[in-house]
Amino acid sequence: MIDFSPPESPYRVSYDGDFRVAQAATAPSPDAPSDGEIKAQRKRLVREISRLQRRLHAHRHYAVLLVFQAMDAAGKDSTIRAVMTGVNPAGFRINSFETPSNEEARHDFLWRTTRRLPEKGRIGIFNRSYYEEVLIVRVHPEFLDRQKLPRRLPIMERCAERYQSIRDHERHLALNGTVILKFWLNISKEEQARRFLRRIDRPDKNWKFSRADIEERQHWDAYMAAYEDAINATARPWAPWYAIPADSKPYMRLVVAQLVRDQLATLDLTHPALPDEEQAELQGYRLCPPGRRTVVESRLTSCTT
Amino acid sequence: MIDFSPPESPYRVSYDGDFRVAQAATAPSPDAPSDGEIKAQRKRLVREISRLQRRLHAHRHYAVLLVFQAMDAAGKDSTIRAVMTGVNPAGFRINSFETPSNEEARHDFLWRTTRRLPEKGRIGIFNRSYYEEVLIVRVHPEFLDRQKLPRRLPIMERCAERYQSIRDHERHLALNGTVILKFWLNISKEEQARRFLRRIDRPDKNWKFSRADIEERQHWDAYMAAYEDAINATARPWAPWYAIPADSKPYMRLVVAQLVRDQLATLDLTHPALPDEEQAELQGYRLCPPGRRTVVESRLTSCTT
Repeated sequence: MIDFSPPESPYRVSYDGDFRVAQAATAPSPDAPSDGEIKAQRKRLVREISRLQRRLHAHRHYAVLLVFQAMDAAGKDSTIRAVMTGVNPAGFRINSFETPSNEEARHDFLWRTTRRLPEKGRIGIFNRSYYEEVLIVRVHPEFLDRQKLPRRLPIMERCAERYQSIRDHERHLALNGTVILKFWLNISKEEQARRFLRRIDRPDKNWKFSRADIEERQHWDAYMAAYEDAINATARPWAPWYAIPADSKPYMRLVVAQLVRDQLATLDLTHPALPDEEQAELQGYRLCPPGRRTVVESRLTSCTT
Repeated sequence: MIDFSPPESPYRVSYDGDFRVAQAATAPSPDAPSDGEIKAQRKRLVREISRLQRRLHAHRHYAVLLVFQAMDAAGKDSTIRAVMTGVNPAGFRINSFETPSNEEARHDFLWRTTRRLPEKGRIGIFNRSYYEEVLIVRVHPEFLDRQKLPRRLPIMERCAERYQSIRDHERHLALNGTVILKFWLNISKEEQARRFLRRIDRPDKNWKFSRADIEERQHWDAYMAAYEDAINATARPWAPWYAIPADSKPYMRLVVAQLVRDQLATLDLTHPALPDEEQAELQGYRLCPPGRRTVVESRLTSCTT
């Protein structure tokens, strides 16, 4: 088995199933720096992520998959923006998963995200993911009707079966070179209410408001139970969950940037060295013999003497 | 757990790991009918497959995946042609997997076939498959270099890890409504030689000849060991293997057609009945009141009195 060592953090969920939503912080650590200092730190981290991403690309032995899950208004989109803006856009891809299409609903529940998995050398970002299939679907089991599953199963058994599928899937990906980090952006019910009110009050935020989001608030406790079970069932060293306090957006973004940077920094991303014979061959493509330099002129090249 | 009951057959491999290539028949059963009778039987079966496929499509609770693996010249292509010609082409899709593209090689080894999995209501045919990743790759481990896997592992350990990935993958698909049948077309080394000679002797078959095929013959025993291990490691009630004698093409095609037909016939494929209220609504779309018939004329419709 590979020695998986995901980034250390007080927010990393343990692998023994004792994660409790009720005990997970939604507010920043009391010793968090000021918002100004936080932003400066985050910008330094993004520069580092950008540098490490280039190595990831040259090295091509690893893909990186970042999974974001959260209640509405927790700040998934803005966190992804804050962590990835400034990184070469050719090096990553953001996939947002909303209601499945008809074609997607006619496949197994891992199919649509599998198609969008990052290739080696790339970072793939899942804004929502296959975890919706044990979250929203557990709160609204009637959504499963569309999937025409061959057996009727009580929803808790269905979820248990799906946890197993997810564990197997993530283990397979990890063994084959995909490094997985999963973020649950943990917003409090009160802070969500404040953000919804802002969407109503501020004309520039009106477009974000949706009646459905308000209705989902009545299922808050059911969602928390679904997150707790799903996180406990799937937190493993090769696919760790981080429960990030989300009531302060600057702090949340900093913590996520730090974890992404730490993960990239622990990968063995030395620029690949060519084998000796290929290196020799490369030298053979020089125009001038060793010891003399190629001088490039407007229409000709010549060698120094 | 679902009660999986794949079609019975003397060629179905047991699930307890005691399949031995050396004991598997390559020649037809001695009580096989004449070639003419075989062909007539196969044609009847194809008509049944065609009829059952329509129901599969209307029902949309199941997808069917047929995996074909074999040594060169065993007759994969012609068997697929013989079993599927006459079935509505919109109801199935044949995917041939040859050397992976660069993009495919940069993903985990299940990715490229997963993208081509059949949706519910469809039959998907894999002419070669992810099994190549524990067959050709076991005989030629250097092919793995291209996949830039994160760890060096002895090839037998790599294969053991991949058997586990394949078992998990197939179990997940089966639980979510994909019915899987796997066919190993078992040709003898002598019959392969005869077919290669025919490719050399007959001008209309010259195009099929490839020097590489001849070279692979020297690895025959290594391939047989790789098939035996892979088949034993992955034969399960929800993804059974059938080792089909391939020295007689007509017989092989008949056996495969019979198994496909038997599998489709055991699925619960009653045409979906509409709920009463939807059925009533449908009646409301009739142009004439109940008891009177709609008469369609060239420019008008009218009702009988």
